[in-house]
Amino acid sequence: MAIENAKRQLLQCYERIKPYVHRTPVLTSFQIDKLSTSELFFKCENFQRMGAYKMRGATNAILLLDDQQKKRGVVTHSSGNFAQALSLAAKSIGVEAYIVMPSSAPQVKKDAVMGYGGKIVECEPTLEARAKAAQKIQVETGATFIHPSNDENVIIGQGTACLELLQDHPDLDFVVAPVGGGGLIAGTALAVQNFGNDCKAIGSEPFEVDDAYRSLQSGKIEGNETTDTIADGLKTQLGDKNFPIILDHVDAIIRVTEDEIVNAMRLIWERMKIIVEPSSAVALAAVLREKQRFKNKKTGIIISGGNVDLKNLPF
Amino acid sequence: MAIENAKRQLLQCYERIKPYVHRTPVLTSFQIDKLSTSELFFKCENFQRMGAYKMRGATNAILLLDDQQKKRGVVTHSSGNFAQALSLAAKSIGVEAYIVMPSSAPQVKKDAVMGYGGKIVECEPTLEARAKAAQKIQVETGATFIHPSNDENVIIGQGTACLELLQDHPDLDFVVAPVGGGGLIAGTALAVQNFGNDCKAIGSEPFEVDDAYRSLQSGKIEGNETTDTIADGLKTQLGDKNFPIILDHVDAIIRVTEDEIVNAMRLIWERMKIIVEPSSAVALAAVLREKQRFKNKKTGIIISGGNVDLKNLPF
Repeated sequence: MAIENAKRQLLQCYERIKPYVHRTPVLTSFQIDKLSTSELFFKCENFQRMGAYKMRGATNAILLLDDQQKKRGVVTHSSGNFAQALSLAAKSIGVEAYIVMPSSAPQVKKDAVMGYGGKIVECEPTLEARAKAAQKIQVETGATFIHPSNDENVIIGQGTACLELLQDHPDLDFVVAPVGGGGLIAGTALAVQNFGNDCKAIGSEPFEVDDAYRSLQSGKIEGNETTDTIADGLKTQLGDKNFPIILDHVDAIIRVTEDEIVNAMRLIWERMKIIVEPSSAVALAAVLREKQRFKNKKTGIIISGGNVDLKNLPF
Repeated sequence: MAIENAKRQLLQCYERIKPYVHRTPVLTSFQIDKLSTSELFFKCENFQRMGAYKMRGATNAILLLDDQQKKRGVVTHSSGNFAQALSLAAKSIGVEAYIVMPSSAPQVKKDAVMGYGGKIVECEPTLEARAKAAQKIQVETGATFIHPSNDENVIIGQGTACLELLQDHPDLDFVVAPVGGGGLIAGTALAVQNFGNDCKAIGSEPFEVDDAYRSLQSGKIEGNETTDTIADGLKTQLGDKNFPIILDHVDAIIRVTEDEIVNAMRLIWERMKIIVEPSSAVALAAVLREKQRFKNKKTGIIISGGNVDLKNLPF
């Protein structure tokens, strides 16, 4: 199953969400280019509203609801960036957002969601309790469930980051994005396919959560047996809506070690003076790991977000 | 004593150093505007080459040497950003740079200078030993001494950051810059005076090193009795070339506490996702401390640099 008319959908989405999201800048670094022996273009979604690309998909999904649905609100389960994104997007559009979070989630994440106006519903930290809590809200309020990554409108929304990148730099040879739940890489792959010029979409993920790499090998959605990675945004697994797109349109998945992630993150912080979260650094880590592939090529890198706990840095 | 034809000098300098420095972006933050009840425009010299505005003054000073002087090189004493700036500027122009540093300087700073091609000359950590070492190099090599802040060409160079800021935003009511050795604030004040439209230059410094505040009160250059501040770039004192400019053209110096500096720094990191050094945060801290003064005004803030030791953060 593929998304129909992805090109038109991406362009329409881009116009639809424009009043609600930033067009983020594309930065370059002479020093990192030299080190990687390639030409890199960093699409800085860490400068996006609420600090991550997730704002795009959340906004698109809400704007596509009809008026009745908007009145009843939206619900999701997430303890990461999508929880904040849905809260802020909903608030901007004037819609109620219910966020199911495990009671064990860090207070700082709960505070962030509340700060953006989301209503937190706590549940036990199990997948079952989470699904049940979301179901209950849907029944009681009539809110529409929006999945953080396995939702066509979310996927299209995330793809607009790469669409903008290719508008600014139409001649990229590669675009690399991190792979978590699969929404960003699927949207990126659709943008590359429809707006790239002989360009390839590459995913990157930690060895510790290499479900996408193994799924691409086996042809079916694989789970993770280990999840001990600093890239906490990438622990989720692929879904039935984004996996077929990834299978069709992603050229390769590059896996990286934890050390490589931390080194890439430090490099971006020290050389580019921008704050990126570990999940974002995974994409640069992939380019540095497979230098030969990217040598003398123009490569776009989706810097997915910049929400880090400054009290808990890996340096 | 004032600098003659500052307007023409600033414009000429701007053209002269253009091939060697970045035109840095001006960023804004909706969240910090709301918090400060004012409209802030951050001139991001943390994105400047080698990570600080010092690149501007160093480049200007070297470019103004004649060919004979260029052949003999330049020398300065600094263990901070100016050491790196002079090294990189000299390398870019093809000139030798000798950097006198106390033997006690952190290895990371020595490595940075060497990384940019500067030749380090170590000395005992006293002002006397430092001056003697610099003198010796001048005699032996014929190199020209360039002071990090008390040099007209350096002052004019640093002023181009504010010149660019006012080109982008001609209607600023204030421009706030941190005060250390006085080069940046003097250059900023000259730019404000010549290119601002009813605009005022404001300096900011930690209470711990409030020599500029007291100097402005007494009318003569005062020293510091305490220097226990996290803003390590601001521990130096004013000089006879920049002080008269500061006296004439700076409207006020606002002092801030160490807590206010760390809070402002955290705010910039968390909200703007950019890495700024403590000395840079002093300017935002001043705006947040004296909210009434800046209320509903347009204020430019010179983010002076982004060189921090990631292993030693105050959060």
